Amino acid sequence: MAAILAQNNYGKSQVRLTKVTRHADRHDLMEVAVDTALQGDFEDTHITGDNAKVLPTDTQKNTVYALARQHAFESIEAFGLILGRHFVSGFPKLVTEARINLTESLWKRVSTSKGPHPTTFECPGNEVRLAEVIVDYEGASVAGGISDLLLLKTTDSEFWGYLVDKYTTLKETKDRIVSTSVTAHWVYNSDESDFQKSYAAIRNAFMETFAHHHSLSVQQTLYAMGAAALEAAPDIAEISLSLPNRHNLLANLEPFGLDNPNQIFVATSEPFGLIEATIARE
Amino acid sequence: MAAILAQNNYGKSQVRLTKVTRHADRHDLMEVAVDTALQGDFEDTHITGDNAKVLPTDTQKNTVYALARQHAFESIEAFGLILGRHFVSGFPKLVTEARINLTESLWKRVSTSKGPHPTTFECPGNEVRLAEVIVDYEGASVAGGISDLLLLKTTDSEFWGYLVDKYTTLKETKDRIVSTSVTAHWVYNSDESDFQKSYAAIRNAFMETFAHHHSLSVQQTLYAMGAAALEAAPDIAEISLSLPNRHNLLANLEPFGLDNPNQIFVATSEPFGLIEATIARE
Amino acid sequence: MAAILAQNNYGKSQVRLTKVTRHADRHDLMEVAVDTALQGDFEDTHITGDNAKVLPTDTQKNTVYALARQHAFESIEAFGLILGRHFVSGFPKLVTEARINLTESLWKRVSTSKGPHPTTFECPGNEVRLAEVIVDYEGASVAGGISDLLLLKTTDSEFWGYLVDKYTTLKETKDRIVSTSVTAHWVYNSDESDFQKSYAAIRNAFMETFAHHHSLSVQQTLYAMGAAALEAAPDIAEISLSLPNRHNLLANLEPFGLDNPNQIFVATSEPFGLIEATIARE
Amino acid sequence: MAAILAQNNYGKSQVRLTKVTRHADRHDLMEVAVDTALQGDFEDTHITGDNAKVLPTDTQKNTVYALARQHAFESIEAFGLILGRHFVSGFPKLVTEARINLTESLWKRVSTSKGPHPTTFECPGNEVRLAEVIVDYEGASVAGGISDLLLLKTTDSEFWGYLVDKYTTLKETKDRIVSTSVTAHWVYNSDESDFQKSYAAIRNAFMETFAHHHSLSVQQTLYAMGAAALEAAPDIAEISLSLPNRHNLLANLEPFGLDNPNQIFVATSEPFGLIEATIARE
Repeated sequence: MAAILAQNNYGKSQVRLTKVTRHADRHDLMEVAVDTALQGDFEDTHITGDNAKVLPTDTQKNTVYALARQHAFESIEAFGLILGRHFVSGFPKLVTEARINLTESLWKRVSTSKGPHPTTFECPGNEVRLAEVIVDYEGASVAGGISDLLLLKTTDSEFWGYLVDKYTTLKETKDRIVSTSVTAHWVYNSDESDFQKSYAAIRNAFMETFAHHHSLSVQQTLYAMGAAALEAAPDIAEISLSLPNRHNLLANLEPFGLDNPNQIFVATSEPFGLIEATIARE
Repeated sequence: MAAILAQNNYGKSQVRLTKVTRHADRHDLMEVAVDTALQGDFEDTHITGDNAKVLPTDTQKNTVYALARQHAFESIEAFGLILGRHFVSGFPKLVTEARINLTESLWKRVSTSKGPHPTTFECPGNEVRLAEVIVDYEGASVAGGISDLLLLKTTDSEFWGYLVDKYTTLKETKDRIVSTSVTAHWVYNSDESDFQKSYAAIRNAFMETFAHHHSLSVQQTLYAMGAAALEAAPDIAEISLSLPNRHNLLANLEPFGLDNPNQIFVATSEPFGLIEATIARE
Repeated sequence: MAAILAQNNYGKSQVRLTKVTRHADRHDLMEVAVDTALQGDFEDTHITGDNAKVLPTDTQKNTVYALARQHAFESIEAFGLILGRHFVSGFPKLVTEARINLTESLWKRVSTSKGPHPTTFECPGNEVRLAEVIVDYEGASVAGGISDLLLLKTTDSEFWGYLVDKYTTLKETKDRIVSTSVTAHWVYNSDESDFQKSYAAIRNAFMETFAHHHSLSVQQTLYAMGAAALEAAPDIAEISLSLPNRHNLLANLEPFGLDNPNQIFVATSEPFGLIEATIARE
Repeated sequence: MAAILAQNNYGKSQVRLTKVTRHADRHDLMEVAVDTALQGDFEDTHITGDNAKVLPTDTQKNTVYALARQHAFESIEAFGLILGRHFVSGFPKLVTEARINLTESLWKRVSTSKGPHPTTFECPGNEVRLAEVIVDYEGASVAGGISDLLLLKTTDSEFWGYLVDKYTTLKETKDRIVSTSVTAHWVYNSDESDFQKSYAAIRNAFMETFAHHHSLSVQQTLYAMGAAALEAAPDIAEISLSLPNRHNLLANLEPFGLDNPNQIFVATSEPFGLIEATIARE
């Protein structure tokens, strides 16, 4: 039997960078975790252990910090492009593709009694901004994203009229809680898009749609959110959403002689429904 | 050798309740995880397996949902008092002490283009509100708390003039990043305090002090935050803070011929400094 | 602008099943978390909210428990096939593909002074066994896997002769620690393979190769592990490995006048190298 | 209002050390995460920001690595004593108490076809060994511990005859699954105890007792495990156990016309019972 190397990539993950940009009247802050992954002519190190063509992952890590110092950038997408282009153009014939994944912590300026503080920040939560940049000899593709955006609506959600089989016990409902943690990825039409503007427009479209949409299924809400995002951000080609349905189950209080008109729920972590779709332009 | 039962308690943990209070014009939402722990005359079940005096943890769980239905409460402290008093007064001679720990997810109303939405909520993050209520035959003690409040300041922090021994390599600094995740617990003077008002005042005192304090050590910042909280909330007796020092290390770019005037940092998770103190009134 | 539904799937995640098979002389135990994901004719629920073709995720969950009761199975792969075939054959023209992901906790019988205990189990760790079964109208594909298998070797690992650029600071080494957490996925040639035997053979090939291979790079070790697995398990077509390089950095004790002949290391979580490849048969 | 500093401590957490002891025929491996916490004359830094008496947490971290190099030790308890004594005796009048917490990853030698491998290790899991050493002017106290030891028994566990109130819905059972994750802490009589021997004896007592004990309540099992540990390890004074009851709920298959003779269970993470007690010698 002979084995062959069908595919490979390598890089450094969780390279954690904090960049402070010091203006006269304020500081700006970006915290990002970077993953690099290179593809190319790396067969030797796998087969014979000859590392002559291997750019160490430690060097890739150093490169993240060094390029962050040498370049100004407003978005993680822009930084991903700087990194990806460096690896592909810097090592011709060796690195054929660089994939850069970036996860940004969402620090925002603290509001104080004296106004927004120029150099103090809070990170309100779990929610992060994502980007994936892939650079190869043909050019660059850029994707943006969000994960862990937690939303809940206490009403305006129904679920009924579904398929019933012998294992169905779920009761139909005209009024339920929907609680989710939005993960989304979208593909930019160009590596010169206004990433900041699109990100803000998409996030806003999610919030508005989730709040105002009357939902007959999580699928319908997901589709509406995706369509609204495409409407709001003309420079994205398509968007994928992944919406867990984090069930809040109506507590059964009957054994205690109590009614429960949609007031008391058991919040659960598992199992959860998972609804996923990609919405594109016609 | 004879073994004795020196101490014991038991209960249900992570009883997760979502309560929706339905007003004509809006819904209010509280999500809380409750832990119950009872102490009392429970020797039999340990020694002989006779469970006649054991209120099952499943019943304790049911009680959380049933009492949530029967009582209105504005704060988790108030709900903890309802639960704790139920267990101690409901089982005289059996339950001598009930300890209720509550962790509240901080859902807030979503802002939309049409104003705050009446029935849609977002949960920005990790930060939670905490309470611990202990009820025994003497009465009730109530503690409030916060954890996972992430704050960072990019300047106005120094650290120098410290003790140096043979294992010291740290360089003194007049300007560093301080990043922390605030955990705090405070003890109320009374079980009739205005818990909502004190919580808001303490959280605000933390934000203002962290932002405006010029720090010579994390200890000094911690003390100032604690003292400000005592000042802002007259009905608390003392406050304990636990401040991890989540180091952002200045990246060494010298090998690449680059300077680094406090702009590029390596964010780290471990190891971290941990500074803890209790501040009380004189 | 018109939006279209480009792709979609939905199901229930983290359906957690414990199955006890009660023999006369012993019990067998399987604990598995199941994720179901269905693809098919689900456009209506997305576009109009008409759920007539939707098999609720709650029903999918029920199905997991009901089929676990009705069928005997030795492996999670076999259970995945039972589930996947149920969804595809049970709802013709509706469900065109069912993807079942299974994660098994590795409970093993406790050894006692009286021998292996017939009904008591321990779960030694993080390590899990994985399977992914995809069923469509054409048939079924089955993949097996492992994740979180933690291995470390204190010697027999070198890394030198690599590419050096202006951002390279790493020192060459002829003797380092390699610590990793193996994740692997492999594709079976048939849905009638002996999944139990192959799993055991692959895991054993990993352990033997990691231990006895003299490593010139993590890539070389990965390739050797993959090739050994292909050798050991004739009924798999290819195997993908993902090996984080969890760095143990030699502690710098020079400032304290101490040498450090590869004895004292700083264990780190982040950043980490990540080496990934797919090894196939020629 | 005047604030006072009622209590304080500070130190470095998650100082992660890997120590390789290189014998002629094999290597030994210890991986431990160390937390240091010092108490003493640290009022100045809190009140005025004068750091003259502060031993930086960075220095505490360096000390962990430097002392690990200079001393041989077999157990984490022994290493904790070395560290604690260094801080208390090295800074007289300043450090009045040092608390050292240690968490050991349980690496064990890999078994291969050629026998136990001399330099390759696996870490089977979550389970860790714990120690807490407190040194002050009076001497040293040492505690050992275990956490995340996962055990499950499929039978030999009952729960009935308990107190019933108006919120009780639990059904009595003569045969249930008990699944737990053992956390235990024990106090040594002396800082010269044989920590290795006691740890092994206590862990073994847990396994034997959990397996062979016929349980009428988790409390009874806990007590039996504690008593067995005291019996097995004469040099410990008392032991505290914390046993979550990780419920496996009998799946209700009646709606599908199926029976369920204790075969199919829903494994759950939350809520969970939590049973805690301290067992001492008479």
